[in-house]
Amino acid sequence: MKILFIGDVVGSPGRDMVHDYLPKLKEKYRPNITIINGENAAAGKGITEKIYKEFLEHGAQVVTLGNHTWAKKEIFEFIEDAKYMVRPANFPQDTPGKGSVFINVNGTEVAVINIQGRSFLDPLDDPFRKADEIIKEARKRTNIIFLDFHAEATSEKQAMGMYVDGRISAMVGTHTHVQTADERILPKGTGYITDVGMTGPYDAILGVEKEAVMKRFLTSLPVRFEVDKKGRAQLNGCLVTIDKNTGNTKKIERILINDDHPFFS
Amino acid sequence: MKILFIGDVVGSPGRDMVHDYLPKLKEKYRPNITIINGENAAAGKGITEKIYKEFLEHGAQVVTLGNHTWAKKEIFEFIEDAKYMVRPANFPQDTPGKGSVFINVNGTEVAVINIQGRSFLDPLDDPFRKADEIIKEARKRTNIIFLDFHAEATSEKQAMGMYVDGRISAMVGTHTHVQTADERILPKGTGYITDVGMTGPYDAILGVEKEAVMKRFLTSLPVRFEVDKKGRAQLNGCLVTIDKNTGNTKKIERILINDDHPFFS
Amino acid sequence: MKILFIGDVVGSPGRDMVHDYLPKLKEKYRPNITIINGENAAAGKGITEKIYKEFLEHGAQVVTLGNHTWAKKEIFEFIEDAKYMVRPANFPQDTPGKGSVFINVNGTEVAVINIQGRSFLDPLDDPFRKADEIIKEARKRTNIIFLDFHAEATSEKQAMGMYVDGRISAMVGTHTHVQTADERILPKGTGYITDVGMTGPYDAILGVEKEAVMKRFLTSLPVRFEVDKKGRAQLNGCLVTIDKNTGNTKKIERILINDDHPFFS
Amino acid sequence: MKILFIGDVVGSPGRDMVHDYLPKLKEKYRPNITIINGENAAAGKGITEKIYKEFLEHGAQVVTLGNHTWAKKEIFEFIEDAKYMVRPANFPQDTPGKGSVFINVNGTEVAVINIQGRSFLDPLDDPFRKADEIIKEARKRTNIIFLDFHAEATSEKQAMGMYVDGRISAMVGTHTHVQTADERILPKGTGYITDVGMTGPYDAILGVEKEAVMKRFLTSLPVRFEVDKKGRAQLNGCLVTIDKNTGNTKKIERILINDDHPFFS
Ligand SMILES: [Fe+2]
Ligand SMILES: [Fe+2]
Ligand SMILES: [Fe+2]
Ligand SMILES: [Fe+2]
Ligand SMILES: [Fe+2]
Ligand SMILES: [Fe+2]
Ligand SMILES: [Fe+2]
Ligand SMILES: [Fe+2]
Repeated sequence: MKILFIGDVVGSPGRDMVHDYLPKLKEKYRPNITIINGENAAAGKGITEKIYKEFLEHGAQVVTLGNHTWAKKEIFEFIEDAKYMVRPANFPQDTPGKGSVFINVNGTEVAVINIQGRSFLDPLDDPFRKADEIIKEARKRTNIIFLDFHAEATSEKQAMGMYVDGRISAMVGTHTHVQTADERILPKGTGYITDVGMTGPYDAILGVEKEAVMKRFLTSLPVRFEVDKKGRAQLNGCLVTIDKNTGNTKKIERILINDDHPFFS
Repeated sequence: MKILFIGDVVGSPGRDMVHDYLPKLKEKYRPNITIINGENAAAGKGITEKIYKEFLEHGAQVVTLGNHTWAKKEIFEFIEDAKYMVRPANFPQDTPGKGSVFINVNGTEVAVINIQGRSFLDPLDDPFRKADEIIKEARKRTNIIFLDFHAEATSEKQAMGMYVDGRISAMVGTHTHVQTADERILPKGTGYITDVGMTGPYDAILGVEKEAVMKRFLTSLPVRFEVDKKGRAQLNGCLVTIDKNTGNTKKIERILINDDHPFFS
Repeated sequence: MKILFIGDVVGSPGRDMVHDYLPKLKEKYRPNITIINGENAAAGKGITEKIYKEFLEHGAQVVTLGNHTWAKKEIFEFIEDAKYMVRPANFPQDTPGKGSVFINVNGTEVAVINIQGRSFLDPLDDPFRKADEIIKEARKRTNIIFLDFHAEATSEKQAMGMYVDGRISAMVGTHTHVQTADERILPKGTGYITDVGMTGPYDAILGVEKEAVMKRFLTSLPVRFEVDKKGRAQLNGCLVTIDKNTGNTKKIERILINDDHPFFS
Repeated sequence: MKILFIGDVVGSPGRDMVHDYLPKLKEKYRPNITIINGENAAAGKGITEKIYKEFLEHGAQVVTLGNHTWAKKEIFEFIEDAKYMVRPANFPQDTPGKGSVFINVNGTEVAVINIQGRSFLDPLDDPFRKADEIIKEARKRTNIIFLDFHAEATSEKQAMGMYVDGRISAMVGTHTHVQTADERILPKGTGYITDVGMTGPYDAILGVEKEAVMKRFLTSLPVRFEVDKKGRAQLNGCLVTIDKNTGNTKKIERILINDDHPFFS
């Protein structure tokens, strides 16, 4: 069982990369499931129904989110009907949407979970206990469980990895928009990477026009953060190969496509 | 001009890795200068004079620090005499120690600078303006300038990279203890990586015993954070090759040594 | 029904003020219950069994706590037996101790609750939903309900006040160590004050020696924070008068005793 | 020398209170100077030229600001010409506007300074060293120096008070929007209050519609924060009486006008 995961898609440059490379990645890696983090897909913050549907049309089976889930107002109109979209499961009780979904892949169920960290982020419900709860439920149905843990602090992400090790197939981190080089299989069999990185502008700061971000740091003045559309683009992702019988990860590989790391089919 | 940089050395497992692998790395890469971030070298927080001197004996030319600079009290007794140790330059005025140093390598001067970020960290002096000031001074003497930017947020680190691009030879990030996979040469010639990662325990959380960190996240109770000494160790670093004439980086390579990435001489 | 509340008692100067003035306050105000916030009672952080028992002997019926609950290790040995001590109810599940207690005052039950905020503080369980849960339970037994909401941000404290208005008798804020002048009865009958203030050193910063705190702000160096024992002391508290039939507050008065506001019996 | 200070004026309810009560306050207290914090005057965030001029027409001599200085875009068009408006002096170098101003009162100069804290707020320049610098300059011209320290943490505010004690006439805190009851004259003669409080809606949370703020805390969803216009209003301020010869404060009084504290002329 192969799962392809594409990190935070930022604006149109990110969506264009998905459009251009997802077919090639699918041909090269032949994943059984493709998951896209789409929290920055619409103009850098949030997601629209149109974009969500495009992701599915381009070949994704699930879209995950994060702290920018609610940035585009129309999310409230379609999230309940977006069967294959998950937002962090530890958002407060009664929040619209859901935090996990089951996908049927030729008779095998795959659980996809989204959880958000609390270090340097909003004080949501306990991500660790929420993980316990969802994993327990999911394991009644399947041992193929995939977690997108959307968090800032490396300590919280490594702690979550160690915490769920042996109970889920893989945890990939998102949110910092920078891919980490620490992909590994944890001692009890869970595939792990602290952050998958982002998909979008390559000559920008986390996807945003660099001039604006530098101005903000230098002046503390309000600046409008716009997705950088004038530079080159990149795609960040990873591929997790899971043993269907044990649910353990057999292999986890980083995917990085940009001018410094050209794609080879 | 080759500069070898070794990321945050954590406790005795980290120091042992330096002891064991620095000679091999030197033989393999033949760096002109070796720089070690030592802010976690003494029992996970801070540094002692003995450890500082050992680093020099093992073949380092400069030791950089970070937010844990003052963790061991004896630092105040030796920092003024530690000629080859730099602490973040944007610590408040009149702080003991210095933020930059010049090393003479066969007649060529190399400036090594340490600066700390402010996002999710202490509110120090402006790191960007401090960079301006030090770089301006350094460029009067040399065009080989190396910056260890010790910071948490990926946005602040990328912003600093873009900000100094073309004015210094290379900026490497430290502090998150997780190596990033985004090493690159920025458009105007500055070598860049968001974080070099850490050197020390591999079966731990940022170097600390994983049980303690998980307990802290799960209970919010006070826990003693000890360097993990029972597991395996790793070494994280990078090698920057600089054009002596232009001061630009020609090549930047990540170094990662652990059980999943064995060292090949 | 009169409830006397004494704000964060800091170290021996604070305990001495309780010892000296509690009898006088009791004589003057004739409270039916006295509650003391003791999170800083032992050397500025935490509480010991000896101090807890002294508070009861001096005439308190309940001791509340806050973010410093666990600062003294011996707390873990006596908290389960400390019948009249409450720590924030929204600490993680399975945390030692309890978050509310019922006191019988001549046949009338009074519920005393402790909850901690999350803004600028640790990411605990949702304080608002925890309030709902405890208030619902408490109202099955009594309509005299008193809440010590230990929090930093004025917005979170006012929000909690408005949120519980009409459902509890009174909410007093603690933690900032500075008494606010906004005591009032909210529209639906709940007595409210954003912060009661602290009891302890008057010539210090929040109870701590001022030289150390100023040094910390000026240098970012580590400094030992000691309770100031050389200066004058103060007592901060408030008195809430509750209508036994409705459970509403009829009157809420600030109490402030220091050299600028001498006590008059 | 009497200085009347009016705390953060929030939206039209706050401006109406200034309009209605400033003449009465002037008649009652006969201040030589009136200072208004106007950082929330325009729809709850920022200030416009029209409002700034109205404040002067209503009888204020100086308008101070804070972290919301830049919220209304037009500020950039008039701040350089707004002779009697000060924004935090420790904003980054080259920021538009100025951090202090001198007012001539019948031949006596009064320096009015605005500085912003860094705890739980943006990482600006060091507020303590900036205070040193400005006070030193100001004392060349006058010993009547008034500081509006716009900050969140009580520790930082008390530390600033202790730090400038004896060097300026008075420091009043702003930003938390809740008046504190700790007005006092510090040992070396400086008048002090941790926070003056706010001027505007009384049935709201810090001036904002309470339903929105509670929803935000309960759901973490984005909510539009609007100034509450349907409820009652309040005015918070203070009056400082300064000895013209020594520059020390002789008396500091809180001013609180609302339905629970009616104004008496
Ligand atoms: Fe993102
Ligand atoms: Fe995010
Ligand atoms: Fe470190
Ligand atoms: Fe660090
Ligand atoms: Fe506290
Ligand atoms: Fe306290
Ligand atoms: Fe403010
Ligand atoms: Fe304000």
